[in-house]
Amino acid sequence: MTREGHMEISAPDVMPEAVFEASSHLETFDDMIVECPECGESHRADHLVEDNTDIEEAESLPTDEIADLLAEHDVACPTCGGPLAGEPVDDFNLMFETNIGPGTSSPGYLRPETAQGIFVDFPQWAEYARNQLPFGVAQIGKAYRNEISPRKSIIRVREFTQAELEHFFDPDEDEPPLHRVEDVTLPLYPVAEQEADDGEIHWLTVGEALKEGVIGSDWLAFYLGLSKGWYDRIGVDMDRFRYRQHLPGELSHYATDTWDAEAELGGDWVEITGFADRGSYDLDKHAEHTDEDYTVFKQYDDPVTVERPTVDPDMSYLGPEFGGAAADVADELDALVAHNPDAFDGETVTVEVDGEAYDIPVGKTGFDVEEVTESGEHVRPHIIEPAFGVGRLVYTVMAHAYEEDEVDGEPRRLLSLPPEMAPTTVGVFPLMDRDGLDDRARDLASDLREAGLDVAYDESGAIGRRYRRQDEVGTPFCVTVDYDTLEDGTVTVRERDTTDQKRVPTDDLAGVLRALRDGDRSFEVL
Amino acid sequence: MTREGHMEISAPDVMPEAVFEASSHLETFDDMIVECPECGESHRADHLVEDNTDIEEAESLPTDEIADLLAEHDVACPTCGGPLAGEPVDDFNLMFETNIGPGTSSPGYLRPETAQGIFVDFPQWAEYARNQLPFGVAQIGKAYRNEISPRKSIIRVREFTQAELEHFFDPDEDEPPLHRVEDVTLPLYPVAEQEADDGEIHWLTVGEALKEGVIGSDWLAFYLGLSKGWYDRIGVDMDRFRYRQHLPGELSHYATDTWDAEAELGGDWVEITGFADRGSYDLDKHAEHTDEDYTVFKQYDDPVTVERPTVDPDMSYLGPEFGGAAADVADELDALVAHNPDAFDGETVTVEVDGEAYDIPVGKTGFDVEEVTESGEHVRPHIIEPAFGVGRLVYTVMAHAYEEDEVDGEPRRLLSLPPEMAPTTVGVFPLMDRDGLDDRARDLASDLREAGLDVAYDESGAIGRRYRRQDEVGTPFCVTVDYDTLEDGTVTVRERDTTDQKRVPTDDLAGVLRALRDGDRSFEVL
Repeated sequence: MTREGHMEISAPDVMPEAVFEASSHLETFDDMIVECPECGESHRADHLVEDNTDIEEAESLPTDEIADLLAEHDVACPTCGGPLAGEPVDDFNLMFETNIGPGTSSPGYLRPETAQGIFVDFPQWAEYARNQLPFGVAQIGKAYRNEISPRKSIIRVREFTQAELEHFFDPDEDEPPLHRVEDVTLPLYPVAEQEADDGEIHWLTVGEALKEGVIGSDWLAFYLGLSKGWYDRIGVDMDRFRYRQHLPGELSHYATDTWDAEAELGGDWVEITGFADRGSYDLDKHAEHTDEDYTVFKQYDDPVTVERPTVDPDMSYLGPEFGGAAADVADELDALVAHNPDAFDGETVTVEVDGEAYDIPVGKTGFDVEEVTESGEHVRPHIIEPAFGVGRLVYTVMAHAYEEDEVDGEPRRLLSLPPEMAPTTVGVFPLMDRDGLDDRARDLASDLREAGLDVAYDESGAIGRRYRRQDEVGTPFCVTVDYDTLEDGTVTVRERDTTDQKRVPTDDLAGVLRALRDGDRSFEVL
Repeated sequence: MTREGHMEISAPDVMPEAVFEASSHLETFDDMIVECPECGESHRADHLVEDNTDIEEAESLPTDEIADLLAEHDVACPTCGGPLAGEPVDDFNLMFETNIGPGTSSPGYLRPETAQGIFVDFPQWAEYARNQLPFGVAQIGKAYRNEISPRKSIIRVREFTQAELEHFFDPDEDEPPLHRVEDVTLPLYPVAEQEADDGEIHWLTVGEALKEGVIGSDWLAFYLGLSKGWYDRIGVDMDRFRYRQHLPGELSHYATDTWDAEAELGGDWVEITGFADRGSYDLDKHAEHTDEDYTVFKQYDDPVTVERPTVDPDMSYLGPEFGGAAADVADELDALVAHNPDAFDGETVTVEVDGEAYDIPVGKTGFDVEEVTESGEHVRPHIIEPAFGVGRLVYTVMAHAYEEDEVDGEPRRLLSLPPEMAPTTVGVFPLMDRDGLDDRARDLASDLREAGLDVAYDESGAIGRRYRRQDEVGTPFCVTVDYDTLEDGTVTVRERDTTDQKRVPTDDLAGVLRALRDGDRSFEVL
């Protein structure tokens, strides 16, 4: 993200209630809960409906309808089998609550997404960006959701790592550099295909998808195009990957369009990233709740002269005429002229204060149309948000890298991770743990670590067994120190996927391994 | 840390109550609080005592004594000036509390240190390390302390980033590789110097400090030696830095010795890292509270035959003789033989069950001494813990890098950060934002980003002003694209501290800048 020139920040995990009032998480970030009267276990009521009926998007139904469905289908508690019919279905807020400081007067919440920490401090980021749109602010950090029933391994957990980018841009002016991605081919699964009986994935370039209207927003298309190469590079299997557009009923209330990057995992398609067009919703909400205006001042190339209708009410008339209501009447005139100057076209103008109508002769309002020169305008940016679930990504990369094959007639399990993704880049083994081979191998391991490589040293068991250990955890290269090493200073380097071996001088080893890891050299032509 | 071969993990931020029962945080992780009866504001009572009396370590006094001191010295509320005399002083637990899942039956806490996440899963890390001591487990992450009154900028905050290493070793066998650090000179401020009237910092090598007994533990000395070069490298001013030993009253109950790395900030010495010898305290506590044994099995080189006294009580005697107490008597005999086999030397042996004494003829206990061959033993490791406060470190590096000088007769403010620490490595400017200079500079910025550099592009204002902006945020190098660039493809590279300038071909630029950043080349001899 910083390669695109964006900033990276780290906002607090615990934030005060006011933030989530503004973001509407306090009011709407709920799941539906039903408690078993027999065993006391709580369950997600909409999931129970989905598991026990043909209904697919139960989340969008109201709680009382869910309660009716539980009764109608005689849904039983998955824990104890007790009946759930007649039990109330409630909204359960998914934010973890705590108190900031002593006492209970300052409730706080663990952030349910990293995004709000970016939105709430937008005025600060705009200042850092010297008020120049577009700019992006990224954050990698924990998000917390008090799930009613976490499940599916690490797919749905209560604490997870998010990587979010909020890209702020002027919707009237800023264009993405589409030329960089227009030829990238995307596996797209748009709404129309999902709704068709035999819907299929469309392979379209970014350029085609925009031209055919499959993707409606240039900025969304840009980020889909940009991200695809990255998924490929980190090891997501492109045959088990797609971009799926949200169905109309699935869209968050703030989003105008959303595409999920999805990976196939164990037969299910799982969201690994959401790309949402959030419009100006988030900044609108935070602006409503604070004195900050959450805009960027956009300077015009040349100052512009505009006509602006104004009032300057004659208080010496309004005071005696309307008494205590005079000041409020003046305020209402002020508000009226801004949004409906035509109201001042007649002889009198009427405003309402506390439910009562007041007629004021236009001559007493000081109505006038001034010429004003403006050097720019305040723009509230729109937002495109790519939000990555880091745990799900790691899980996908591991699942897609898992392979089984045979080596020397024996079954082998391996993680075929791209070298730059492997937790350990190189395993270092002495052929035997004696005759100085072990000391030499330990020194070599230490040198390779100094050179910035991730190294595992292993001297226990047969060499084949040691290779197997590294294959299982995805280590792409293993180096063996043998008797020839003591004589000619070369070692055997063995590649994980092919099990091919080459001799490399120890003097060049760190450089060669780094180049292999970074993709600057290939093992075949070593 | 991983360069030393340690593992890095990421444990949960929210952990269940049982973890903090075992670690004793639930019982003892308190600060003393007093609430003002007039304005309702809460304050740290021990800090008020320190601020208003000559007492220095008020934290170690009991709460009632603190309450007496507040009354005695007529301490007033710092917020409203109201009297605090007679107000109760309470213990306030500093952990943020929340609930895991629906309801309140599973309280959880935000971790007050990253360490417990490492200790509680020790059996898992030992398995990863294939039960080979020594090994280390590191974690960088958030820690949360619900401070009564956060203060001093970012020195005392409620949410902060820690980097902790827990180094597990066999106290009877594992030695640190002291040869790597024995000649490193340390600025030491041991207890004796702190207690002396004219105490001074002792500059001693690691070797000398160990020989003279200034540092008691080889492992602590190793980590002090290892860390010093790192502080220097990241930009901590070695003239404003020391290692201070904890005074006996200051030591945590679990620690046998602790040294803090301290930096001078605004006239105060501030802890930036704690190096604690925690013995086996943490693993002992977690072992007490679970079924896991929190040990590593250490294989002997050769099996050892030992004599082991055992009992095999004759239940056909014990049953009729002691009735319902028979089973408990047998258990007590079992326990007794393990820790005091001499008790079986006489005719009878006596055990106590529920406060009552039982005499058993030794002949009925089945007492025997067996020869047992053991292949190894269970070792509970000791722990050395370097715990870094990341925010304080960053603050120190920035404060120590801040300088004011003059350039061309104008005052200048700069952050003289080591190049590898600067958030931006290079600022790229077009001399003018026209004639294609801006396009060329933008392309160059993009190329440098592709090459893995952190780049700021700036085209607004005079060049001098743009240099000043980068100086202020510590950017070590600025590149200017001028009319010569269009002709001969070279650019001006300007160094921050000296303001010296050199011409460099754009083809070599990324490589040169990377080498400068990584310290592989020096600007002077470019």
